[in-house]
Amino acid sequence: MTAQEVERGRFVRQPNRFTARITADGAGGYPAEAGRYRLFVSYACPWAHRSLIVRSLLGLEDVLPVAVVDPIRDERGWRFPDPDPVTGAAFLSELYLASDPSFEGRYTVPCIWDTVTERLVTNDFPNITTMLETEFTALHGPGAPDLYPEALRPEIDELNDLVYNTVNNGVYKAGFATEQEPYDEAFDALFATFDRLEERLADRRYLFGDRLTEADVRLYPTLARFDAVYYSHFKCNQRRLADLPNLWAYARDLYSLPAFGGTTDFDHIKRHYYVTQRNINPSGVVPKGPLIDWTAPHGRETLTEG
Amino acid sequence: MTAQEVERGRFVRQPNRFTARITADGAGGYPAEAGRYRLFVSYACPWAHRSLIVRSLLGLEDVLPVAVVDPIRDERGWRFPDPDPVTGAAFLSELYLASDPSFEGRYTVPCIWDTVTERLVTNDFPNITTMLETEFTALHGPGAPDLYPEALRPEIDELNDLVYNTVNNGVYKAGFATEQEPYDEAFDALFATFDRLEERLADRRYLFGDRLTEADVRLYPTLARFDAVYYSHFKCNQRRLADLPNLWAYARDLYSLPAFGGTTDFDHIKRHYYVTQRNINPSGVVPKGPLIDWTAPHGRETLTEG
Repeated sequence: MTAQEVERGRFVRQPNRFTARITADGAGGYPAEAGRYRLFVSYACPWAHRSLIVRSLLGLEDVLPVAVVDPIRDERGWRFPDPDPVTGAAFLSELYLASDPSFEGRYTVPCIWDTVTERLVTNDFPNITTMLETEFTALHGPGAPDLYPEALRPEIDELNDLVYNTVNNGVYKAGFATEQEPYDEAFDALFATFDRLEERLADRRYLFGDRLTEADVRLYPTLARFDAVYYSHFKCNQRRLADLPNLWAYARDLYSLPAFGGTTDFDHIKRHYYVTQRNINPSGVVPKGPLIDWTAPHGRETLTEG
Repeated sequence: MTAQEVERGRFVRQPNRFTARITADGAGGYPAEAGRYRLFVSYACPWAHRSLIVRSLLGLEDVLPVAVVDPIRDERGWRFPDPDPVTGAAFLSELYLASDPSFEGRYTVPCIWDTVTERLVTNDFPNITTMLETEFTALHGPGAPDLYPEALRPEIDELNDLVYNTVNNGVYKAGFATEQEPYDEAFDALFATFDRLEERLADRRYLFGDRLTEADVRLYPTLARFDAVYYSHFKCNQRRLADLPNLWAYARDLYSLPAFGGTTDFDHIKRHYYVTQRNINPSGVVPKGPLIDWTAPHGRETLTEG
């Protein structure tokens, strides 16, 4: 979070610097290969969380090794608890500057490093998950789902746009606003979308029926952080996730799957936001609550069709 | 809130400067008389809220006129929306400095001004309510309750001590802590007391059975502010008041009485904490939530004995 990202009280997310693409045919110089690339994530970051979920759902754990940064970020950016054994980096910034010595933006996760050319391929989070879904198919594990089926892509993309603008990034627009008006707008848009999703999930197990898709992958990281962080820290407090019965049961249904629950680290999430974002929480004190039972029965098995 | 009030990360409330007492017999120079004194309050302040509740319950509205400050406080302290018509003061500080030119502490509400000697009598909030209850009895309205019955005083005082230390002031200890440990301690003590009160209120309509007492007057202002402010702004987020069924119904039962509900101004409360306490909320943005229905039926009439 840098100052130039708030313009007249309104949060504006910076564009992503590295946007190359790993492809099945290697046409751009980055062929999809097992063990060649390295994924850098924070368990705290919702954008990185997506990539961990997809990597797990598609059985790409051995194909794409991962390195996890410490949840506490200071003015030097993301740091590794111990230097990364593959790249030797102590800070994520080293990978950015090795790839582009003139880089002056924020060092963000997720990003993917190529161990052959020794440079970052991409930090373009919206395209990392779909790239794993469509370009790594030959490397997917047995029985991997098609999370981005061709016939559904226009509909998935449309829903993802709404969810990105009003939910995923919407909570940041509310939380990083320094004026009342942009906050109020983000708040209203967020809960309007929650109302739509609550209705949509009344008779559908997942956002597109009985199959998991990229749309679920993108919604979940915001839901996982909602009551623990966004409700208070980002002032998204019209209602808790726990006050929206369908959305809350849907979130617990996803959490019960190892790809979702096993990549959700509430300790990293809470410590990251409350300790790192001193512009919002000057004391750095981390709330002890809320008491939430993510393992309560969700009862949504009966919504599965056929 | 001044810096010297946080010592090693721990919030310490300053002592009250003016501690004279208005008495029925006037022995100390301040006799209880109708119309002689003026009560200064903020609707936002929980300590001032107590005095408004008691003033209303005892029918002292005409006996003790009130002046209300603006909810937004800056470095000059509490301000009047328009100069106070009786004292002519534009800022509360003028009354403090007229009474003691050497005063260097915070200018606090509630406080009581004597229009005869033209000085502050008391800003000693713990004793203002009991003073109205015990020294103004001849001026009480018809049918005024005895909120501080002699036989119950030791028990009421004991419960009030616990409620003050862990609830009324406990939320401030949590919210103003700048280190994790004092925050954690305050959080644990607060919710331990909430658990005790939740149990106590299971079969009692009010804290001391079927009669309202000073103990209810002291607990209510914190409950009224809890979900709207303390849960998020002061990080008191183990559970909401709304998650404690007896306490929440008890709070709504009190809110339904004009002395409680009619003195509860959620707009003043939210704007005061979120706009004024920039050490906790640097942006000054005021949350739009939470959605709460304080007028939902409380169902506690059946707990009334005999």
